[in-house]
Amino acid sequence: MRTYLDCYPCFLNQALRAARIATDDEAKIKRVLDEVGMMLKEIPLDSTPPESGRLIYRKISEITENIDPYRKIKKESTEKALSLYPYLKSRVVASNDRLLMAIRIAIAGNVIDFGANWGFDWDTEVADTLEKEFALFDYDKFREKLDTAQKIVYLGDNAGECVFDKILIEEMKKPVVYVVRGAPIINDATRADAVQAGIDKVATIVSSGTDAPGTILDTCSTEFKALFHNSDFIISKGQGNYEALSHTSASRLIFFLLKVKCRVLARNIGVEEGGIVIQAGRDR
Amino acid sequence: MRTYLDCYPCFLNQALRAARIATDDEAKIKRVLDEVGMMLKEIPLDSTPPESGRLIYRKISEITENIDPYRKIKKESTEKALSLYPYLKSRVVASNDRLLMAIRIAIAGNVIDFGANWGFDWDTEVADTLEKEFALFDYDKFREKLDTAQKIVYLGDNAGECVFDKILIEEMKKPVVYVVRGAPIINDATRADAVQAGIDKVATIVSSGTDAPGTILDTCSTEFKALFHNSDFIISKGQGNYEALSHTSASRLIFFLLKVKCRVLARNIGVEEGGIVIQAGRDR
Repeated sequence: MRTYLDCYPCFLNQALRAARIATDDEAKIKRVLDEVGMMLKEIPLDSTPPESGRLIYRKISEITENIDPYRKIKKESTEKALSLYPYLKSRVVASNDRLLMAIRIAIAGNVIDFGANWGFDWDTEVADTLEKEFALFDYDKFREKLDTAQKIVYLGDNAGECVFDKILIEEMKKPVVYVVRGAPIINDATRADAVQAGIDKVATIVSSGTDAPGTILDTCSTEFKALFHNSDFIISKGQGNYEALSHTSASRLIFFLLKVKCRVLARNIGVEEGGIVIQAGRDR
Repeated sequence: MRTYLDCYPCFLNQALRAARIATDDEAKIKRVLDEVGMMLKEIPLDSTPPESGRLIYRKISEITENIDPYRKIKKESTEKALSLYPYLKSRVVASNDRLLMAIRIAIAGNVIDFGANWGFDWDTEVADTLEKEFALFDYDKFREKLDTAQKIVYLGDNAGECVFDKILIEEMKKPVVYVVRGAPIINDATRADAVQAGIDKVATIVSSGTDAPGTILDTCSTEFKALFHNSDFIISKGQGNYEALSHTSASRLIFFLLKVKCRVLARNIGVEEGGIVIQAGRDR
């Protein structure tokens, strides 16, 4: 997905929030705004938002001298998500389409986001997502493809969300490689976050090697790229992964599972803001 | 009032909205974002927001080659406000404190804002403001001072809002000099807007000479500054005028009438966002 005009003020808003989380020093926060302001002109409209997010959040870490400002928030998100696990699991057990309920839960976990979205209310958002009509619903294709899949590559998104992903992984009953970011970036899940969520009990955790808030293949390790291109069933969670992959030819290998969290993505994907989506990627 | 960290992303948001109103050319809008992004580092935290607004909106006009993008919006705002005039007047007539109701109406007119605030709903906002508790209420001082005033200097704010101001002017029954901006800036009222609202029927219209979205005295004409400093009763409408004057020694001459339209101002003035205010300015 390209960068839209609305992304530029959003980048600056995100920079302010992240800088405030990273430091209390007003002079440093002002420097973040100054520097990110100057970076905007270097961001072309045909780049993807995670490419810019990667540079912007690195700049924030550099100025605030805090390489992982979201560490505490991520840990708390996972703890909160773990406390919901028994309830979420009971929803699957009580459902007459367990796989679909598990997908809904995985998408509900996508509300945990400290990048574009902010100030969400967990309980309301999760409850809302479990009842919502799908805006895009390639579920039959998903189930069909899952039946013949030998192995699933599952691109994780945010810390905390991993707990919700675990429920879907358990329901799919196939070998899963769960992919995390290679370095801390916003509240995206790294290996430590996936392990805290218990993903290591149900899947093999691998790092994509990227330090971007989305699976930008150019920034991933050679090993991960080989894994990715040799897969026939990839689940991509969340907005950052969608933004990084939706326009590539690799998109045809992927099912995108996400909640649409801003109007820019809403316009790109063609659904209302807040919509929930299972979309089979197409050749681009 | 100083500039707060939250103002910087807001400047960029305003630039995007204004640029879109000024032109359909995406390349020009992108250039506005680039240039305003670069300007941010030049904005010191101890300047006032209207000082920066002045430079930013001028830059937008320059890039989009549109010196008055809000002209149509301003005209329509005044038409809409004129259609509400009979209703507003009837509320004054039916009130047991006509002056206070007229002040409420003048403040209700302050919801018309295409700068910091956006996407307001006229009817709801006006109705809400007419019933709301005041967050700051120096009304007794206002009435006392009005009793002995020989002449009132009334600093206008936005186009459309002038119609609401007219009702207060009619109720005060004193000679009024109504002050408009010297050049188009956002949707702020200029002489033409005040005349369209019928202010010329009830007051003498003068220009402050400024091209800023607030009465920044340094940018006003010598004539206006003489008028200002020789006044003993000044009414200042709206956020831009408050931001420009609240911290100056001249503040002691002024009654600030406004609706608090962002969290930055809320913090500065010490009331909740959305609060309505009659505040007697103090020596600073």
